Amino acid sequence: MHKATIDVETRGRGLYDLTRDLSREIRHSGVSDGLALVFVRHTSASLVIQENADPQVQVDLLDFFERLVPENDPHYTHRSEGPDDMPAHIRTALTSSSEVIPVGDGRLALGTWQALYLFEHRRAPHRRRIDLRVMGE
Amino acid sequence: MHKATIDVETRGRGLYDLTRDLSREIRHSGVSDGLALVFVRHTSASLVIQENADPQVQVDLLDFFERLVPENDPHYTHRSEGPDDMPAHIRTALTSSSEVIPVGDGRLALGTWQALYLFEHRRAPHRRRIDLRVMGE
Amino acid sequence: MHKATIDVETRGRGLYDLTRDLSREIRHSGVSDGLALVFVRHTSASLVIQENADPQVQVDLLDFFERLVPENDPHYTHRSEGPDDMPAHIRTALTSSSEVIPVGDGRLALGTWQALYLFEHRRAPHRRRIDLRVMGE
Repeated sequence: MHKATIDVETRGRGLYDLTRDLSREIRHSGVSDGLALVFVRHTSASLVIQENADPQVQVDLLDFFERLVPENDPHYTHRSEGPDDMPAHIRTALTSSSEVIPVGDGRLALGTWQALYLFEHRRAPHRRRIDLRVMGE
Repeated sequence: MHKATIDVETRGRGLYDLTRDLSREIRHSGVSDGLALVFVRHTSASLVIQENADPQVQVDLLDFFERLVPENDPHYTHRSEGPDDMPAHIRTALTSSSEVIPVGDGRLALGTWQALYLFEHRRAPHRRRIDLRVMGE
Repeated sequence: MHKATIDVETRGRGLYDLTRDLSREIRHSGVSDGLALVFVRHTSASLVIQENADPQVQVDLLDFFERLVPENDPHYTHRSEGPDDMPAHIRTALTSSSEVIPVGDGRLALGTWQALYLFEHRRAPHRRRIDLRVMGE
């Protein structure tokens, strides 16, 4: 069992690619076949596995979530932490706080077009802590 | 490997905090570092990791899902189990049937503001069975 | 640790039941108690655990996602792979690329009304590769 944390300094809303950091930790783990758990210790940032080829996919994904869960929706009652906080919680619930990815032959077994991203939902810069576990044999 | 179930008696729609029950099972497991799998054995209740500080977050989250997936949508054809059943299945698909959370130093490694909730989507009381596995060393 | 892949030939949008294939691999694994990780190696198909009883649930679920994330939304800028590609990426983000399901007494520990489905989001037939890991004792 290999245990690690990754700290990411975000610069506002967007997707931050974690694939390289996670691949490095899998090499460090010495695990050949098993699984990697990735967990975000926050409620206004989440994880998403998405296409890594055309950067317009990320633009459209962000835009979709901004329209689906708008800021300044008059229904929100939780406003004390700013107009982007409640949308951040809802967008986190609609995506994932954790992802579990297979490890095979000592490597992260993502598909060719997949990357793992931290999805930052807040406008201001944040330090985000991501917890890892790599298990197997 | 530690195996357990948690039964929750729900009293209609809402979030039910599972964090204390899950923490207790991790202590019972004797696992110091590893992971905990939490799994809901139902298709009209789900799991969500959310902020545990301001109760208004829960109010707004519930309200969002009621507006995004309304009851009495004329498009639904599955109506035999009541007007709140099809929305419950869709809300389950939009959140998660399972969550995997790291275990570290013998404890559930949630962030400071995170709690794990059972998200009950039906109006009537239900007994919900949640399956746990704690693995590691 | 048991490792396997399942290949599914999809015939356009819809849910494809993986429960039988997954149950077979759990029998092959020899694991009595533990967990099964199921992972889709694509960004325009995903996983969902849903009711297996009334087929109308699947009809309504597909219809909901087609309305929530429509094709031909003028906001999309990623159009090079066809009008159904960007909606496929968004619908994948709203559901899951991975599911982790308990194994108990040598069997997949789903609830009575639960089945695991591959959720194909593209219109054309695709060969989808699904990666499995079964771990435990």
